[in-house]
Amino acid sequence: MQLATFQNKMIPLLEQHMRHYLAQFTENKTLQAAMQYSLEAGGKRIRPLLIMLICQSLEKKIDTDVLSVAGSLEFLHTYSLIHDDLPEMDNDDLRRGKPTNHKVFGQDIAVLAGDALLTEAFGWLAKTKLTPKKRITLVAALAKAAGANGMVAGQTGDILGEKTTLTLSELMQVHKNKTGQLLEYACFAGAILGEATPKQEQALVTFGQKFGLAFQIYDDILDVTSTTAELGKTANKDVAENKNTYPLLLGLKGAKQALVDTLKQAKDQLEFLDKSGLETSLLRQVLEYFKL
Amino acid sequence: MQLATFQNKMIPLLEQHMRHYLAQFTENKTLQAAMQYSLEAGGKRIRPLLIMLICQSLEKKIDTDVLSVAGSLEFLHTYSLIHDDLPEMDNDDLRRGKPTNHKVFGQDIAVLAGDALLTEAFGWLAKTKLTPKKRITLVAALAKAAGANGMVAGQTGDILGEKTTLTLSELMQVHKNKTGQLLEYACFAGAILGEATPKQEQALVTFGQKFGLAFQIYDDILDVTSTTAELGKTANKDVAENKNTYPLLLGLKGAKQALVDTLKQAKDQLEFLDKSGLETSLLRQVLEYFKL
Repeated sequence: MQLATFQNKMIPLLEQHMRHYLAQFTENKTLQAAMQYSLEAGGKRIRPLLIMLICQSLEKKIDTDVLSVAGSLEFLHTYSLIHDDLPEMDNDDLRRGKPTNHKVFGQDIAVLAGDALLTEAFGWLAKTKLTPKKRITLVAALAKAAGANGMVAGQTGDILGEKTTLTLSELMQVHKNKTGQLLEYACFAGAILGEATPKQEQALVTFGQKFGLAFQIYDDILDVTSTTAELGKTANKDVAENKNTYPLLLGLKGAKQALVDTLKQAKDQLEFLDKSGLETSLLRQVLEYFKL
Repeated sequence: MQLATFQNKMIPLLEQHMRHYLAQFTENKTLQAAMQYSLEAGGKRIRPLLIMLICQSLEKKIDTDVLSVAGSLEFLHTYSLIHDDLPEMDNDDLRRGKPTNHKVFGQDIAVLAGDALLTEAFGWLAKTKLTPKKRITLVAALAKAAGANGMVAGQTGDILGEKTTLTLSELMQVHKNKTGQLLEYACFAGAILGEATPKQEQALVTFGQKFGLAFQIYDDILDVTSTTAELGKTANKDVAENKNTYPLLLGLKGAKQALVDTLKQAKDQLEFLDKSGLETSLLRQVLEYFKL
């Protein structure tokens, strides 16, 4: 199957499922509208897509529970974008080519919309029809990936890192936490949903780690080589803000080589999964996302 | 038993348990310090106390799991205080007589410390040794109480309400969401941990609702009648900010009567629980907190 075919079928299903879930939060209409605004702002849906692709590889039907776990992760990711964009954080006016949440709803509502999306991400996992054991495994894993030793630690390191120059290994650790852990969780969640064997699960998690690293290197490279229009967000912002990036530490050529090396490591995992009987052609195609 | 005896024994245990749990979050020391600062800032620990009191009433031993569920709730409550105090929200410089989190760590770190505490509240529930079914019941209930139809909706309503005058029923709904739902969750969690019968559980939940309402009316009254030193936070802030409060809508005398009526309703639930065989003297004593 072509990745585009899969995406064109599944992403609208996911988005409809998220819209449907969001419809219950009517207690405060402004809050609901602010959550909806950022959820509807598009984006590549790469995290939920990974979950669905791995389910497909494991011949697990993309049913309501899979869509809920995928939607929960997109809720959580969307919260992180809203908070990251806040004036006291990265202070971004544009996200995916549209005004950021706080530009539309104000800073107070943006904080609250993020808080609500984060909270409901866990609530959604808890309310699926999966076995209680699977649900609790996913809640624990999501908290680990997103929490104080995970994404939030990474974002804190990123912000504090602006005031100093990190070493390459420090930078990698910040990125592993900020971006990598959630992508790793996506692969883990797919493995749990699709009931992968322990060895398959490990390979999928490692694939997720490499995918996360590639994702960050690629993002850093694009920030240097693209225009604002191409990015849908302000270009050259990293340099302007003295952010620690791969091109800064390794040079543009070195960063591109690091990307090639990391993608090779991701493909190695897919090779192992192929041999274990999985159909990984879609996961292989998703790596083409990182074309320079 | 005297409530003070119970508190003097249990609250230090709870605080030690929270400190111990927090010690694992070493990925970013600044983040950990910011989380710790607000967790250590004291407060009455009323939410975890309710959980422990109800367990005691149900003759459920206050074991590690009870302390973890109680600690998780205090994590979540502490996140809500940090975010509520932010400049874009209630803009408070003092909390419990100490500088607020963002005054010490900066606004960016305060947002992140709140995000981390919220996330880890769910992670902690997921990692207890309770049955997966109980854990998932608590995760779902906490998300419901704290989320987009719960506490966050209430806080949003509170903030938007400053720009208009609410009716009494609108005000009650805002408070039910902002303060009541989490106190109700505390009582529900105690019932789940102590394996209350369905009727006892219902009475405990109703007790929690009345307790929550009393809590808010009492807080509003104190804001009018106390000094900043007595409160440990800025007094008369509600009036200054044109907040909708019970004294504003009912007059001070009317607000005091509403408090008396609400406490009576809470005691009615305890009477029912007494008859069902629970020892509710500690819960009765906790209502004395609302002395004017």
